[in-house]
Amino acid sequence: MKYTDKLKSIDSNGIGLCIGLDPVIEKLPDILKDEKKSILKFNNEIINATKDYAAAYKPNLAFYEACGVSGWEQLEETIGLIPQDKLIIADAKRGDIGNTAKAYAAAIFDSLRADAVTVNPYLGSDSIIPFIDRDDKGIFLLAVTSNRSGKEIQQLVAEGESIYMHVIRMASRLNSRQNIGLVVGATHPEELETILPSALDMPLLIPGVGAQGGDIETLRNALTGHTGVKLVNSSRGIIYASGESDFAEAAANEAEKLSELLND
Amino acid sequence: MKYTDKLKSIDSNGIGLCIGLDPVIEKLPDILKDEKKSILKFNNEIINATKDYAAAYKPNLAFYEACGVSGWEQLEETIGLIPQDKLIIADAKRGDIGNTAKAYAAAIFDSLRADAVTVNPYLGSDSIIPFIDRDDKGIFLLAVTSNRSGKEIQQLVAEGESIYMHVIRMASRLNSRQNIGLVVGATHPEELETILPSALDMPLLIPGVGAQGGDIETLRNALTGHTGVKLVNSSRGIIYASGESDFAEAAANEAEKLSELLND
Repeated sequence: MKYTDKLKSIDSNGIGLCIGLDPVIEKLPDILKDEKKSILKFNNEIINATKDYAAAYKPNLAFYEACGVSGWEQLEETIGLIPQDKLIIADAKRGDIGNTAKAYAAAIFDSLRADAVTVNPYLGSDSIIPFIDRDDKGIFLLAVTSNRSGKEIQQLVAEGESIYMHVIRMASRLNSRQNIGLVVGATHPEELETILPSALDMPLLIPGVGAQGGDIETLRNALTGHTGVKLVNSSRGIIYASGESDFAEAAANEAEKLSELLND
Repeated sequence: MKYTDKLKSIDSNGIGLCIGLDPVIEKLPDILKDEKKSILKFNNEIINATKDYAAAYKPNLAFYEACGVSGWEQLEETIGLIPQDKLIIADAKRGDIGNTAKAYAAAIFDSLRADAVTVNPYLGSDSIIPFIDRDDKGIFLLAVTSNRSGKEIQQLVAEGESIYMHVIRMASRLNSRQNIGLVVGATHPEELETILPSALDMPLLIPGVGAQGGDIETLRNALTGHTGVKLVNSSRGIIYASGESDFAEAAANEAEKLSELLND
């Protein structure tokens, strides 16, 4: 399925749940820790247990790269395990000059076979175009990130607007294929008010709920009026809900609970 | 050898040559194209032929990731082939929130065993700290990039200064271990004048000479007065100097020529 078709299958009246697959060996349940391909086995159980509640899965590449060649292999295999109707977002935050960005696009779309990738805007539009010049794939461009220091650059004001608003206008300008979404951290619901009028129908990927402290009710209110797909991401709060042998069941419970809260 | 010791071994009166190891299968010489681990074999010959002229090597991760698991494996092995006294810069342009940045640091410093990594500043200081909180490794923070669209964000003016100057001040503030350098594209020698007074002794990594059009004499003049290590990177101009069986010899000739031009 194409990225845009998968997007259309997500109800834009509600908020879809995106589950972050960010495996850290030390945090895996004891029964998996010493197994070969423990990350893959962990992800497999998490995906199977949560797929009824998730609209999207988002492996963050850092956690696989930290495991070297075996990590990259388990990343490839993990993506192969995700049901075909779910949106697969490679959280890679890539950004490089044109010919290098092309290589990253090949890595993520053709080799890993993700549907979408998170992209960093600091290098400007020619670093973004190689990811969006095809109809079957898409990106989520970093606008407002959920970390505390995000504001140091993102909230500086130039020509009367914050840097993140310049990024959002860049996204709008480049969005002729309708395959650009935005990353907007849940820890900044106040920024959503400024952002939404310029991004009314753009898909939003919203990290920072749960472990990072974003509040769901405030977020839901802030999103009123947004007509595009909204995906709220939770990683640690779901995948590490239990460190015991019931980790998959605990993850399913947390995913169900969060999915209901998001659409209450 | 520690990153800072390798840096000290580079003569800061001259300009060191950094060779970008950016292998693209289609561009490899015919005699290597169909071989197993062709990238590794190519890199091995390039490194052996050019090591007398290079102060640093800079594999760009995109080109390895585009080859999947085998690419990551050949990247690891390539880094193992680089002589111990050369600075190894992983050109990864990573940037993510704190706990994810930690995983990227583990991937690049501990798993790949590079000395330094290029880092994107858009997420602010807490995304940078995990890369610089150890004495044995360092970063080059993207300030002014060599691509045309770099200016769209980097040259916006906030609080009376361009965004890239905000990035450079951030770098100075965080540089208590003296392990932060800057990426400043050779295609912007005019920006060097603004930058240098704030970065007089910070190492500079300067891409964009050669294929990207940066002029060496203008660059050398602009760098007068900078007291830190200066590394000029060339990738395609050296590694693809010939597509025939004499590619290694041709690369050595180009590396020698550029190294002389840089220090003429």
